[in-house]
Amino acid sequence: MATTTTALLCLCAVTLVASIGVDITEHLNKRAGSSRVAFSAGLTTNLELHQPVNITFDRVFTNIGDAYDNNTGEFTCPAAGTYVFQFHGLTESDGSIWMELFKNNAYVISAYSHSANDYGAASNAIVLQLAVGDVVHLQGHGDVYLYGASDEVYATFNGFLLYPAKSS
Amino acid sequence: MATTTTALLCLCAVTLVASIGVDITEHLNKRAGSSRVAFSAGLTTNLELHQPVNITFDRVFTNIGDAYDNNTGEFTCPAAGTYVFQFHGLTESDGSIWMELFKNNAYVISAYSHSANDYGAASNAIVLQLAVGDVVHLQGHGDVYLYGASDEVYATFNGFLLYPAKSS
Amino acid sequence: MATTTTALLCLCAVTLVASIGVDITEHLNKRAGSSRVAFSAGLTTNLELHQPVNITFDRVFTNIGDAYDNNTGEFTCPAAGTYVFQFHGLTESDGSIWMELFKNNAYVISAYSHSANDYGAASNAIVLQLAVGDVVHLQGHGDVYLYGASDEVYATFNGFLLYPAKSS
Repeated sequence: MATTTTALLCLCAVTLVASIGVDITEHLNKRAGSSRVAFSAGLTTNLELHQPVNITFDRVFTNIGDAYDNNTGEFTCPAAGTYVFQFHGLTESDGSIWMELFKNNAYVISAYSHSANDYGAASNAIVLQLAVGDVVHLQGHGDVYLYGASDEVYATFNGFLLYPAKSS
Repeated sequence: MATTTTALLCLCAVTLVASIGVDITEHLNKRAGSSRVAFSAGLTTNLELHQPVNITFDRVFTNIGDAYDNNTGEFTCPAAGTYVFQFHGLTESDGSIWMELFKNNAYVISAYSHSANDYGAASNAIVLQLAVGDVVHLQGHGDVYLYGASDEVYATFNGFLLYPAKSS
Repeated sequence: MATTTTALLCLCAVTLVASIGVDITEHLNKRAGSSRVAFSAGLTTNLELHQPVNITFDRVFTNIGDAYDNNTGEFTCPAAGTYVFQFHGLTESDGSIWMELFKNNAYVISAYSHSANDYGAASNAIVLQLAVGDVVHLQGHGDVYLYGASDEVYATFNGFLLYPAKSS
């Protein structure tokens, strides 16, 4: 009788231990899984804009989490947290570029370049805290003449999740 | 008698299991908590320097860990580890910028730009291992004419903890 | 008899709990240990190239994992995962720079600058997924005149592991 009780109680303890083990593995995988969002895209053609529209990058190098849409140029945040964004551009000869990064519909930072009879480079970067669904994109300001070719990718847009938001 | 002993021992085992569960959660939270330091700041006005003084950035986008002081422009390391720093600037028209990044009082890297009758962009970035209390800041060299406005933030200074130092 | 059985079973449970504790610590350390690769190097002299050869950076700021070789300028991936690379350069006065980043022997992205009678800055960055043994380096295109001095480090090459590949 006592032995049966003992066996049952110990089985219970062992089951508890095993279930905690599973929980920990799930917890770690969940953390690892949710903590991976990164995109990187570049421009392989000239892009000329004359209105304040989205800048799109056609060649996608990396898109972990599928959060960057290269048709719209928009990154839609799939996991709350702290993100790093970087963007670069080169003008066509004698052209100018004025690129603006927006978070949802709010202006954040810019990059500008113009070089008389030459190509001009510009870039910028930022660290932002985002909630799920926040949209980050680049937009042209005024006349924008971005230079690009299949083997000359100067314009790029990168972003990655640095720290996932802490779970409560 | 035997049953009582069994119950007590199993209670002991269950308590141990539960306490390990708590320890793991604390351990994970401690790791997550100590691994978050990131700042990002930009310049919303013109800034002209004629002496080797700190470059300050007035608009703070992110300051996780409160390690960036926008009055002094200094980042003071709150947690030992490996950090990434990035900085960008744009000159006023025909002005020049010469920005230098210092770790404590030691020179590390620079960015320079001047464009005749135009705005010139420059940037640089570095990965540094820091100890608690190390100070990283940007300093002007010679005459510096940084351009900025409320809706034209070209000059930025970002930094973030990539890897916390391993605990022994 | 029953008490002995109980004691043995409970000892077994406690041992199991302890072994799981050890596994978790090892698991966490393994994760932390395998997730650290970062290099940062700069150029402290002028570097002129007239052939498509590797660009090397002599001053190594950081080299966690010893994956960057400053003799060849090559980063050889020691751990599969998602990496961020950034590079910057400044021309000699009136010179040009055309820097190209390669993954193994495949072209990825570029940076270009030339400024008449002046110094010109350029940079670019990318996020790439690498396998063990993949080589990433920068290469000159055409005539390259990179400017650098001991206290004027404008040209830099940085890379770091953002996310280690998930273990199966």
